[in-house]
Parts: sequence; C-alpha cells; structure tokens
Amino acid sequence: MSDLPDALATLLGPAGLLTDPADIAPALSDWRGLYRGAALAVLRPASTQQVADCVRICAEAGIAIVPQGGNTSMVGGATPEGNGRSVVLSLARMNRIRDIDAVDMTMTAEAGVVVKAAQDAAAEANCLFPLSFGGEGTAMIGGILSTNAGGNTTVRYGNARELMLGLEVVLPDGQVWNGLRRLRKDNTGYALRHLFVGAEGTLGIITAATLRLFARPRASEVLFCSVADEDAALAVFRRFREADETAIRAFEYMSGLGVDFAVKHIPGVALPLAQRADHYILVDLASTRADADLQGLAEQVLGAAMEAGEVLDAVIGGSEARRAALWRIREEHPEAQRKEGASVKNDVSVPVSKVPELIRRASAACGRLIPGIRPVPFGHMGDGNIHMNLEQPEGMDPAAFLARSHDIMETVNAVVRELDGSFSAEHGIGRLKTDMMESWRGGAELDAMRRIKAALDPTGIMNPGKVLP
Amino acid sequence: MSDLPDALATLLGPAGLLTDPADIAPALSDWRGLYRGAALAVLRPASTQQVADCVRICAEAGIAIVPQGGNTSMVGGATPEGNGRSVVLSLARMNRIRDIDAVDMTMTAEAGVVVKAAQDAAAEANCLFPLSFGGEGTAMIGGILSTNAGGNTTVRYGNARELMLGLEVVLPDGQVWNGLRRLRKDNTGYALRHLFVGAEGTLGIITAATLRLFARPRASEVLFCSVADEDAALAVFRRFREADETAIRAFEYMSGLGVDFAVKHIPGVALPLAQRADHYILVDLASTRADADLQGLAEQVLGAAMEAGEVLDAVIGGSEARRAALWRIREEHPEAQRKEGASVKNDVSVPVSKVPELIRRASAACGRLIPGIRPVPFGHMGDGNIHMNLEQPEGMDPAAFLARSHDIMETVNAVVRELDGSFSAEHGIGRLKTDMMESWRGGAELDAMRRIKAALDPTGIMNPGKVLP
Repeated sequence: MSDLPDALATLLGPAGLLTDPADIAPALSDWRGLYRGAALAVLRPASTQQVADCVRICAEAGIAIVPQGGNTSMVGGATPEGNGRSVVLSLARMNRIRDIDAVDMTMTAEAGVVVKAAQDAAAEANCLFPLSFGGEGTAMIGGILSTNAGGNTTVRYGNARELMLGLEVVLPDGQVWNGLRRLRKDNTGYALRHLFVGAEGTLGIITAATLRLFARPRASEVLFCSVADEDAALAVFRRFREADETAIRAFEYMSGLGVDFAVKHIPGVALPLAQRADHYILVDLASTRADADLQGLAEQVLGAAMEAGEVLDAVIGGSEARRAALWRIREEHPEAQRKEGASVKNDVSVPVSKVPELIRRASAACGRLIPGIRPVPFGHMGDGNIHMNLEQPEGMDPAAFLARSHDIMETVNAVVRELDGSFSAEHGIGRLKTDMMESWRGGAELDAMRRIKAALDPTGIMNPGKVLP
Repeated sequence: MSDLPDALATLLGPAGLLTDPADIAPALSDWRGLYRGAALAVLRPASTQQVADCVRICAEAGIAIVPQGGNTSMVGGATPEGNGRSVVLSLARMNRIRDIDAVDMTMTAEAGVVVKAAQDAAAEANCLFPLSFGGEGTAMIGGILSTNAGGNTTVRYGNARELMLGLEVVLPDGQVWNGLRRLRKDNTGYALRHLFVGAEGTLGIITAATLRLFARPRASEVLFCSVADEDAALAVFRRFREADETAIRAFEYMSGLGVDFAVKHIPGVALPLAQRADHYILVDLASTRADADLQGLAEQVLGAAMEAGEVLDAVIGGSEARRAALWRIREEHPEAQRKEGASVKNDVSVPVSKVPELIRRASAACGRLIPGIRPVPFGHMGDGNIHMNLEQPEGMDPAAFLARSHDIMETVNAVVRELDGSFSAEHGIGRLKTDMMESWRGGAELDAMRRIKAALDPTGIMNPGKVLP
C-alpha cells in the first residue's frame, strides 16, 4: 500500500477504513474464480460522507475506484484490474436499513444491506421485497441495482430497476446526489436514477436506494410438471398468463438432463414424478387474496394442458416443505452442473415466444461445435431469460472443454442474435463481456454510452475496464 | 419560410414534408392557450429515415427542432419559442403499428400512433395496452413516452416508462438508434432508453417504441363511495391493497366541491349517492380471472370500511353503462372546473401516505393566500399524484385570479416540498416549470442533467427552452 496517497492514508487510517491486509485477498478475486486483480487498498467507508471523501481524494489523486458489494458478480464486475493502481471500495459497512414505510410500501436501504436482510426486514413490516435469486444471501442492494439483477420473480415484479424509486449516489467528483424519493410519479427532468441502475459502478457509487415493497401473498402454490417439449412449456405459460396474469410469481424451465444432474449430485433432491422426462417446468403461483383458490386455478389450467398433450404429469406442492423441495430441484442446478464437470454459462434472453427455438437451436449448434456436449438450459422462461449452459462431454478433460468457452459462447450468441435476443440478460457485462459490446451495441448506441461516460466521469476513475470496451 | 435552408426546402418540398402554411398555426400554440410560438416550418416526415434526414439537415444548418406529437402537453412542452428560428417536427404521419405479438405481449408502434389507436389495436389482438388518461384520443405514443405520461392506471400498470421495452430514436446528429428490443431482461450497458423517456424531446426524437401489453381483464367492478375525510380515503385504499393488491386498476380521490361542479356543469352527470359529502373515491377493480369475484371482494372491504366509519355510502356499478357513468364524474372534473371559472392547475405528487396532509395543508395555505379560493383537489390517490387545482373565488375577476397563478403554484409547491413530494408528477416540465428546476433539482442533479444534454446534443438544437433552465 506504499503507493497510497498521503491524503487517503491520513483520512482513512485513523477512521479504520483501511482493511487489514489479510482481509484484502477475497476482495481481489471474483467468486467464480474467473478473475484476479490487485489494488492499492480496500476502503471500507461506513457512511455516505465517508464514501464521498474517499471518492473526492481518489479523484484528486487520479486513483481508480472499484465499487464492491457482495462480490457475487457472475461477470467479474467488481474485481479490480491487474495493474494494482486502483482501490476497491467496499460498501459492506453501509448496511443500515434507514426506513421502512408500510403505508407508502417503501424501504430505504444502504448499499451494503444484504438482499436477504432486506427481504426479512420487509417481511417484519408485513410487506414483501420480491427480488429473489440464488445469491440473495450474499449479494447487496448496491450491487443488485448496479447490475439490475433479475432472478426468479421478474415475470411478476420486474427487475431490480423496476423495484427502485430513488437513489443516493456519490458522483465521480465526490458530489453526493440525494435522489432518495419515494414517489410513483415524478417527471422532473432526465431519469438519472435509471442511468446508474445497470451501470455497474462506472458512473458513480450507489450508496443507498429507496425500494418498492409489495403486499405479502397470503396464498401460494408450487407446481412441478413434466411437459412434452419446449413448445409445450411455453404453451402452459400462456395458459396461466391468460387465466391469471398476476398469479404467476415464477415460471421456470428445466431440461431432463439438468434435473438428472440435480437428482444425481444433490443429497435430498429427488424427482417428484413417477417418470423421467426430457422437459420440466416449475410454476410458482401467489396471490394476496387469501381466497384466491390457486389450487383450483392450477387444476383448471393443468387439466386443459394435459388434455392438449402439453403437460405429461404434474405434482402440486401442498406443504411449505414440499414447495421448498420442488424449488430446490431448480435452485440446485448450478451446483449440480458444477459437480458433473466443467460447464460454460450463457446468461441470454430472447423474446418469450422464441425461447423454445433458442433452446433447440443453441443446443444443436453447440452439439455440432463439440460432439457429445451436454446442453443443460434452465431458467426464467416467463421472462425470456434462459441460462443456456453447456456441460462438457462425458470423459472430456475439463480444461480442454473450458478452453473452448469462447467458441461456445459465440455459438450460443449467434443463435441469440438471430432470435432478436440479448447476450446478457441479468448478469451484466462486467469484464467477461466487454469485448462483445462493440459487435452487439456498437454504432450510435455505444457512441452515446461513451459520451455519457465521458460527461459524468471525465477522468475515467469509476470501475475502469468494465461495461465499455 | 424564407429563412429555410435550401437543403431543407429541397429535401422536403418535393417529398411533401412541408405543411401548407394554413396548417401551421395549430402547431404553434399549446391547447391550453398558455403559449404561442413561431417556426420556420412544420415538417411532417413519414418515416424514420425522413426524420433522420430532417434532423441531419437542421443540425448542419444549426436550426432548432421542436418535436410534436398530439400537442396535448399541459406544460407547453411541444410549443416552439417565439423567436421563429426553429422548426416544428410533427410525428403525426408516422402512425403505423409495425407489429403486435400476442405471445410476447408486445406492440411496436410509431411515434405518431394515437394512444386510443394503440389501445384498440391491442384489444383486437385480445391484449391490453393499459395507459389511460383524458387526452388519450389525441395524445400520441411518442409524446406519452417523451413525457412519461401517467394517468389513471399507474397504480396497477406503471407509467409510460414501465410500459416501454425498447425505442427507436433519431439522435441530435441525425444518427438512428434502433433499440426496438422486446426483451424483459437485457443488461448490456447504460439504459439509454430510460434517458429518452421523460426527456421531452430535448435529447433526440423518439420515432417508434416497443411497448408491453397485458392480458385483458375478464372481470371488473367500479365503486363510487363517499368517505369521511382524506384519511378515510387513504384507509380504504390500504384495505383494498391488503386484500388484493393486483385488483386495483385505479383509485381516485375527488373533493365534494369538485363533484358538485361536475353535477352542476356537465349534462348527464348526477351524484349516484343519496347524500352529498365532502370527499369521494372511485375504485376501479379488475382481474384476468373470470371467477375473481370482485363484487365479493368489494363488499368485504366496504363492509369493514363502513364499520370503521371510513366509508359513508357506496354504489357498485353493475352494467358497463353504469361504470362509464361513475367514471364520467371523475373524468369531467377538468371541464367542470373550466366552466365554473378560472382555475390554476397543480400536477404534484407526494408519498402515498402524505396525500391527506397534502390536500388539507395546500388547501388551507391557498385559502390564506386568496380568501374565498376554492380548492378542488382530485386524482390518482393510489400513486400519490393529486391534481391540486384551485378554483377562483366566486365573483372574482378571472383575469385577476389568473394573475396570481404563480403565487398559487408556489404556495402549493411549498407544502409539496415539506412533504417530500414533486412539483411535477405526470405532466413534466415543458416551458411552464423550467424556472422551478433550479430550486428543486439544482446542484449535483441539474449539473448531471446539463452534462448529459451537452454530451448528446452539444449544439443544443433539440427542443430548446424546455426542461432545463
């Protein structure tokens, strides 16, 4: 840390904001193990003012800043570059829920509040903070907003962006913008808050956010079904949407192989149906109406879908434990894939109508690229976001397979492009996908993004090497 | 039109893009009659390419451009300045619905499509385009996005912003950005589309948009109730939200005086309750479930609310005609206020919990300012957006009353500010409120907006004099 400017050392040392060197290592790598960087220091400010002080001093000294929350980025978004000339700024100590209002249905939480803690705090106020995904026990509010996280409930409640009413942001020159409004309508100039959401810390540091809460469901049902094929899965989604659009809290697709892996590798996971199939769906229904009769709704839709040959078999989770067990089949997919061998992840999206074609065409194209490759697509069919993951062929050397990662991603992306989709649905760009930005977002769009970056962060100190190529 | 550059005249004359001089006048005034401007010409391009050509030529010649849709802005957002050095660019000829997809639940509509036409086209595809407000028969898609229009259904479906998935925009240098994606998840850099929504044409011209559609409700009920006071109105809203959050399609507040005016001035409007009251609410419930039993829901909530003394009397609109009649009481408020005399409009918002306090305090403060002034607050209680309108005292000279407009707006805004609200909820800034921007959004926020404006429109040709002071 000898290169640390005196001003930073003076400010931070006595205030306890410099991490013990032993704590630094975890902040320099991403949890997937894709990247490892270096940093002058890991700063741990505990207040908005301290964040502003850190940014101001770094701006004056020309030191780049890598904001970091729970460090659960799938794309290396919070890992510093290797040159060691930046600081990591951890928001973990800013973990206060400043306010919950059960009439306004809003929560103002600091950036370092863990998502699960936000869910729990909302529940204590008899409200719901609906964002939910695998990393919710570690990911933080600042991170989910900076990456516009999605997850399982987007089909019903939207992405992180749609749950955000206001932000507090430290700008690249150290100014604090207090935009913590809790208004559903506020048309007063450019929507700055939407610019910071999804910017992955390249335009400023989100230090707090005012979030929307919802009424807690009083009724819920979870269904696990085997379906005839990908088209059948989509047809069932349409049936539920038509029958009760607002009841669909999640609608997930899983491949037969993916469920096989979960059953094989994860203790306690079992197939809840009598017969194995090649395609499954999980439908999570919920309503704030205690008398919503979701079981009746489910039986009515499933009856018609079975008659049409779309649903082959189905189970409705009755007890809370049973529902959790059904969800676990889906949630353990990443871990099961890891245990089965090397896999390449593709977080992509297409218009909902094209999900079946995406799964089929991307699977086939990857099979042509690497014979024996095992497609394990799964995810959020209801919002068009499929994790189009590819498991290595049985017996192949994992390293040799991973050496083909780029080719695999390009193969999947070529199909996604033909289907008017996106090469990054909910994980963002980070470091992993910056080299795709030119070909996907080049021209007028990337030009505008670069102008905005230059306008708000003219010296380029905010999270360099991320998002923009 | 003698100052028109040759290039523009050459391009536009033969293609029929120059309006007949007789057609120009309506484009130079706003419909409220607050502003009257002048222009070199009214351009009427019929395609994105023609818009781009117009913009490129104007950019080269340094001619400012005022984009105009249905010209229903409440704040002079589409009226040119008085110097006559700009052109009005009407999007009215770009009125094609390019695509509707009932599986993806998306519609791609050009900027000049009238909102009502978009609603009708969605209905024909058995879908719902939910945005709804008084000007829907004239306002256009480009305008509602450029102003982030709200309206009656924001409480359930969100503002125009939340109904938008993708945009096509002609940038200030004439480049066309095709961002017409129809993806629910797409995290690939800065959210440009959100920057253009609500920018009121100051950053570029929206030429088309991909919009979200919803399943059409199969059940609906409309209730009209007298309530004890403003707090009771809020309490009933909370009861409905708690009982069935997704069923509330609209929740509107009206004052006794406002309903009196409607009954007095609008033929066919009658009070549907036996007794006059000082406060009323209109609740519009809807569900895609045919068996939603909304009447049962309404009776259950109203029963409890009556027992608690919140609701005094209520009527449930049974037939379609009855529902329309109940809605008409609310929708005729602006016209009734106009017929009663001069009135000053305040489109403001506060956190939902503070709506009762807003109504009481703003009414009292205006009464102190101008004794005898008649507050007629009404509007979207469920999303915190109240049209805090003030009718002139009986017998006062209308012109003398209107001369106090600024004082009245400032008086209302002072209360709004104390309640953490916004001085423009759904109408935007336009020309009317630019002078409020510095005091409400000054400092870091306005600084960032100006940087963005300079970055995307460095020569300042896009809709000058609007939004930014």
